[in-house]
Amino acid sequence: MTDFAPLAGTPYVAVIFTSQQADDVAGYGEAAEAMEALAREQPGYVGIESARSAGGFGITVSYWATDADARAWKHVVDHVDVQQRGRSTWYERYAVRVAKIEREYGWERDMRPSHDRSGSTE
Amino acid sequence: MTDFAPLAGTPYVAVIFTSQQADDVAGYGEAAEAMEALAREQPGYVGIESARSAGGFGITVSYWATDADARAWKHVVDHVDVQQRGRSTWYERYAVRVAKIEREYGWERDMRPSHDRSGSTE
Repeated sequence: MTDFAPLAGTPYVAVIFTSQQADDVAGYGEAAEAMEALAREQPGYVGIESARSAGGFGITVSYWATDADARAWKHVVDHVDVQQRGRSTWYERYAVRVAKIEREYGWERDMRPSHDRSGSTE
Repeated sequence: MTDFAPLAGTPYVAVIFTSQQADDVAGYGEAAEAMEALAREQPGYVGIESARSAGGFGITVSYWATDADARAWKHVVDHVDVQQRGRSTWYERYAVRVAKIEREYGWERDMRPSHDRSGSTE
């Protein structure tokens, strides 16, 4: 999935998952899609953004309405992982940061003005 | 840059920059490297993580010790942008979210145990 999550109005919660893929990523694509589909069904789901470079370093940010929703999602992920046993196969390393979003703004080429005046400073 | 930022100890601040590149990205690579070099010189700099998929959707997360450091970095970016006029050329759309990191944990293949017991649940 390579699309923007909505600017949902602060405060809400970001779960920043950064990872380095291992060499063997068999089954990873299907599992990632299944996880995103599962996320969309969870209470408080706002959106997911994901990017992965050619070298295998990736960032996925999932957005949640509340911290309780983010915690519940971690519980779901942990449980699914036990069944898929995928995480320790697909990743060399990962880090997770859970953060409360306090400010946000966006810009789009054909849709000025946006929430911010970036590009028109001074 | 495709590397991990340190788990710096909560609380600290994440600036999540998500973007869709435009077709014309001439000069982008050099500018991105220059911006990262500039970031490293700023007060409160913790780290930067960045990934961009083949379709041009990218996520860059910069980490800062305090919210004041993150705000100061935005001021620097705005000022540099005025000179480079790059942002409106290189991007079709972008969004920025500033968030306070409240929890974090990591896992690495050859360095268990880490800050979390992910993968060994149940």
